[in-house]
Amino acid sequence: MKKIALLGATGSIGQQTVDVVNMHQNEFQLVSISVGRNINEARKIIKACSPRFVSVLHKEDRDMLQLEFPHVTFAYGHEGLIEAAIYEEADIVVNAVLGSVGLEPTLEAIKRGKPIALANKETLVTAGHLVMEAARKYNVPILPVDSEHSAIYQCLQGQDEKAIERLILTASGGSFRDKTRKQLEGVTVKEALNHPNWSMGAKITIDSATMMNKGLEVIEAYWLFGLPYDKIEVVLHKESIIHSMVEFQDTSVIAQLGTPDMRAPIQYALTYPNRLELPNAKRLQLWEVGKLHFSQMDYSRFRCLAFAFEAGKQGGTMPTVLNAANEEAVTAFLDGHISFLQIENMIETAMNRHDVMQNPCLSTIKEVDLEARQFVRSLITKRG
Amino acid sequence: MKKIALLGATGSIGQQTVDVVNMHQNEFQLVSISVGRNINEARKIIKACSPRFVSVLHKEDRDMLQLEFPHVTFAYGHEGLIEAAIYEEADIVVNAVLGSVGLEPTLEAIKRGKPIALANKETLVTAGHLVMEAARKYNVPILPVDSEHSAIYQCLQGQDEKAIERLILTASGGSFRDKTRKQLEGVTVKEALNHPNWSMGAKITIDSATMMNKGLEVIEAYWLFGLPYDKIEVVLHKESIIHSMVEFQDTSVIAQLGTPDMRAPIQYALTYPNRLELPNAKRLQLWEVGKLHFSQMDYSRFRCLAFAFEAGKQGGTMPTVLNAANEEAVTAFLDGHISFLQIENMIETAMNRHDVMQNPCLSTIKEVDLEARQFVRSLITKRG
Repeated sequence: MKKIALLGATGSIGQQTVDVVNMHQNEFQLVSISVGRNINEARKIIKACSPRFVSVLHKEDRDMLQLEFPHVTFAYGHEGLIEAAIYEEADIVVNAVLGSVGLEPTLEAIKRGKPIALANKETLVTAGHLVMEAARKYNVPILPVDSEHSAIYQCLQGQDEKAIERLILTASGGSFRDKTRKQLEGVTVKEALNHPNWSMGAKITIDSATMMNKGLEVIEAYWLFGLPYDKIEVVLHKESIIHSMVEFQDTSVIAQLGTPDMRAPIQYALTYPNRLELPNAKRLQLWEVGKLHFSQMDYSRFRCLAFAFEAGKQGGTMPTVLNAANEEAVTAFLDGHISFLQIENMIETAMNRHDVMQNPCLSTIKEVDLEARQFVRSLITKRG
Repeated sequence: MKKIALLGATGSIGQQTVDVVNMHQNEFQLVSISVGRNINEARKIIKACSPRFVSVLHKEDRDMLQLEFPHVTFAYGHEGLIEAAIYEEADIVVNAVLGSVGLEPTLEAIKRGKPIALANKETLVTAGHLVMEAARKYNVPILPVDSEHSAIYQCLQGQDEKAIERLILTASGGSFRDKTRKQLEGVTVKEALNHPNWSMGAKITIDSATMMNKGLEVIEAYWLFGLPYDKIEVVLHKESIIHSMVEFQDTSVIAQLGTPDMRAPIQYALTYPNRLELPNAKRLQLWEVGKLHFSQMDYSRFRCLAFAFEAGKQGGTMPTVLNAANEEAVTAFLDGHISFLQIENMIETAMNRHDVMQNPCLSTIKEVDLEARQFVRSLITKRG
């Protein structure tokens, strides 16, 4: 029985993790969860899975839930999130929170020797050097949950890692893949949220439309797999059937394929290195799909991807700025304060004014993160 | 330095093995070879690679070559072929002979603990139970050289073999993939030899056109990977970019891809579990390819594939009959004695009249093999 701490239990990945746990009740048990503001969903998970520890965002929610579930230990806020991550009984932490708040819980769990199933890509983007250094020091595996990185992780099993030629991440192109830049000018939030292949949360769906999601994944791949940026490539593949690939020096390419279903990489992270059946999942029949399409990435069409490669290559605090500016700009877009194309303008402006510091410590990262957010907010306020 | 015994050195796979050895002279050395009638090519290989032992088909050729190369040890015939396989210094045997004559050298080399890089699929088709039993007994790896089986072998590295759902072999469809059965009636040898993707020997190119090649590969996969026939599938994929796939119980599919170049699987068998650069090879760029096509296999269009599944499921001596009848019928087609569609008629007739014996020993297999060949030849003679 593998005991699981799940951070971000009511989000899209969180809920699908709960699904996976419920499908394999002889294999997995949820012992600790963190949730944000979605108390109704939290209630359902507490009733269905009986976690022993639950952390919420606000104190008032904690107080209310504690009355309803007297046998559960509750906590709240950032401290509570960390407590949920390091909950002693947990054998593995699934980090599915959104944004850079996921960083500290990850580091604290690593220090306690807990393997991390990581869906929170901002953790690696903003502080990949700290996370991977800690993972090496405490000999803790970082198991990717993103479908692309899970694909690469699966492709690398049993392979000669010295002979890797490049990693090839596939990108569906997001909601607006067939639109020109001109056509992007007037797009609405509703249009942006309509992803062609994957059902995901709002922030990541916007990131898919801007291609920033792929950019964050490139930086995440850099940290997870330890390859230089010139060995990480992105190819457009609109069906999202090939989730990603690894090319080796002998020209052999190993790929992982499947129907789009995030439960598959979630479950793989939990069962690794073994596999279990995935009930109610659609099997891939390539003859039903018929055709798979591939085309070259256009970096002038998808500027956010170019920014991400640039931020990654500059390194140090620049990916933190990229990520923080993006989070704030996407929030502003979702709230109707800025247009779709202004997202990338704000990221570009924030990056241009930042002087990179190399090897930042955690507090520097937090400062830079805050400063970049404030700067982007000030741009939005000026506009308003 | 890995020392190699190469059986069938002047054939298509043999020559490409020589290429691989020559590209990596610090890694590989050819110590022993067997050739058939192609003495001119044999001469070139002897001069370029200086093997210490050479076996030819005919005594006259041996006598001639011995005069030319006094420092090389020569042998001839079936005995010579076995001697080449068990040559003491060899660390690995590449079996690239055509047809079931490759069986005994394989078994003898296994008994001496030599790993086998197996391109001679008839070895497994006619006597898979004997070969795999010997491989287990002597703890010798059988490394597939066929691109499809090498693909599956690569895909299985580091994976949970208990969780395999099915193997999916891809089939290009061969020279006549776009022809109806009606259109197949008048096709010529020259048309059949024009394979769209792979440059291979004549026999295997005809086998690709009849889909018997895929049928033999299905039986080969059955033996190599130990899965029942209902977990082995074939999908049409005309680009031959995905060389084959493995689906796991969690719906995840691992695939191996590459440009069509037999040197890649040959080299992988020689470097396994590591990899080396493959000089002068074309790297796969999926955006250059643009589209990959897949369609369902039509067993009434490609009857030889249905025969192979049937022979495999019946087991025992039936695959030997399938293979022997096919070899004779293909020879007769290449020699202009029968039409293309008569190949499958002769195989069907030979299978229908055969009473399966289960668990045949080597001498029974040889008898059945001979008897099936004589029967098919008698059909051809009657026609003539």
